[in-house]
Amino acid sequence: MSAQKHKVTLLAGGVGGAKMAEGLAALPDVALSVIGNVADDDEFHGLWVSPDIDTLTYSLGDVIDRNQGWGVADEGHRALETLNKLGADTWMSLGDRDFGLHIYRTMRRLQGDRPSDIARDVARAFGVGAEILLPTDNKVQTRVRTDAGWLSFQEYFVRERCAPDVRELAFDGLAQARPAPEALAAIRQADLIVIAPSNPLVSIAPILGVPGITAALRAARAQKVAVSPFIGGKVVKGPADRMMAALGERADAAGVAARYRGLADTLVIDHADAGLSGEIRAMGLAPVCSDILMKTRDDKARLAREVADLGLARTNRETAA
Amino acid sequence: MSAQKHKVTLLAGGVGGAKMAEGLAALPDVALSVIGNVADDDEFHGLWVSPDIDTLTYSLGDVIDRNQGWGVADEGHRALETLNKLGADTWMSLGDRDFGLHIYRTMRRLQGDRPSDIARDVARAFGVGAEILLPTDNKVQTRVRTDAGWLSFQEYFVRERCAPDVRELAFDGLAQARPAPEALAAIRQADLIVIAPSNPLVSIAPILGVPGITAALRAARAQKVAVSPFIGGKVVKGPADRMMAALGERADAAGVAARYRGLADTLVIDHADAGLSGEIRAMGLAPVCSDILMKTRDDKARLAREVADLGLARTNRETAA
Repeated sequence: MSAQKHKVTLLAGGVGGAKMAEGLAALPDVALSVIGNVADDDEFHGLWVSPDIDTLTYSLGDVIDRNQGWGVADEGHRALETLNKLGADTWMSLGDRDFGLHIYRTMRRLQGDRPSDIARDVARAFGVGAEILLPTDNKVQTRVRTDAGWLSFQEYFVRERCAPDVRELAFDGLAQARPAPEALAAIRQADLIVIAPSNPLVSIAPILGVPGITAALRAARAQKVAVSPFIGGKVVKGPADRMMAALGERADAAGVAARYRGLADTLVIDHADAGLSGEIRAMGLAPVCSDILMKTRDDKARLAREVADLGLARTNRETAA
Repeated sequence: MSAQKHKVTLLAGGVGGAKMAEGLAALPDVALSVIGNVADDDEFHGLWVSPDIDTLTYSLGDVIDRNQGWGVADEGHRALETLNKLGADTWMSLGDRDFGLHIYRTMRRLQGDRPSDIARDVARAFGVGAEILLPTDNKVQTRVRTDAGWLSFQEYFVRERCAPDVRELAFDGLAQARPAPEALAAIRQADLIVIAPSNPLVSIAPILGVPGITAALRAARAQKVAVSPFIGGKVVKGPADRMMAALGERADAAGVAARYRGLADTLVIDHADAGLSGEIRAMGLAPVCSDILMKTRDDKARLAREVADLGLARTNRETAA
């Protein structure tokens, strides 16, 4: 077991997901596969943009803009300036280096290549050691209903800066999507499955909702460890707390436990939420307290080590039993 | 006549064409329409690139890179760096600002918009006062046969840096192309028609070759003044001299006269080529000597003034006769 790496499969979306991925990828005894979220994908200027998958690629490829947590370092915005001059809608901030990837992805898709193959080739070109997998090769798109009507996810998230209250979420195409075989294999073969501290509603739900993915998770032999994105009643980044409250869910680690009930064995929560341990345990998840804030490279590595040891230790113990 | 501007229609391709366009556009008494060359167009990374039309737009919009004569000033190459990283062929130097335009054009074309409409909207967005017209909305592509086989024009011009000898030229789609109505109208309504000091073989020929364009030129009431791109046996820029020689044509102003015989009334040649006046006159064109080198803004304005006065004076004289 010492020579062979542990296979860890991470379900991840957004910046929190990418940070967890970085932490796990840095562990010397882990072979990481990340199943990302494609429901934030959208078309801009005729190009196919895949923000969550790109954030994974840029983070694991170590070219991410560390200040903002997304996009590429040393980025320019000349292409967008031209598009703006030409009267195009340019609220979606797309950098020049980033555009190169969107142009490439769009060209490959128009050539008929499978999105999973494109994501794999892009990750390799960026020197990513982990496998970046898509939950599906079909088009799935998160829609957000606000008092002003339905918005695409990027319209809500970027253009409206998450300001409108969310009344309803929908995932166009999700019920008809087919799971990508690589994602199913990564779930089946995993020694440990981790659900990242991502937005449960718009990052993790559209992965779990691909028909066949949740069933594969339930059937998997691996321990499943989820990490809460909450510290107290707030998430570190993004609108998950406000979204959950607006949709009538509990906006705290107990709300996350309710989401992953029957699926995750363990929920890693922040020390600040230790008081919720009883409720979480009552929902059938084993609560484990830690410091979940990932600011530095060391934070990510430490949390990843804890999560890995937790899940792999349990797997080993059960194997031994 | 003094209040109303003279309608000048210019046939132009390449950097020489754009310089002539700039000179004519600067004349206060001229309303300029430029019919550009689309046979250099090509697809790169799934995007539709139109180098000659863009050089016109960038020149007349005063954002051209004045050092190289093409491309946009203050340009970056981050998108191309990403494409290179992804393993794409990146010998075609496409800048980030430039990419914005290619992305826009491609999107509009995929939406079903007419190339002429797109070119018009782009020119307006860049603040171009002149009309930039396409000879056709159909796809026409110059092919260059070398000893290594057939190349696209950009492969010959950019990738191979015009090094291979040209054995044959072909224009895919030209015989089937339909003339754009705006181009025909600009020829019909012109007070003066100018053929720029562009490459006669690959810039002007694919304009003249669109069925209906040459007939419209012959039928036009305006005087037609061509400007030679030669100074002695050499052109100022580009491969026209070597191309003409390789294809068995005379590589000098007399060769240009042979090309425009029966079409142009006047050929403006450089003082250095005064010795060819007799031969040019024998081909039915009136030779006029000038200084055709356009380096500065003043050079362009002076040559444009001479060309305009020449053609418009003749038109006026004939009208008076």
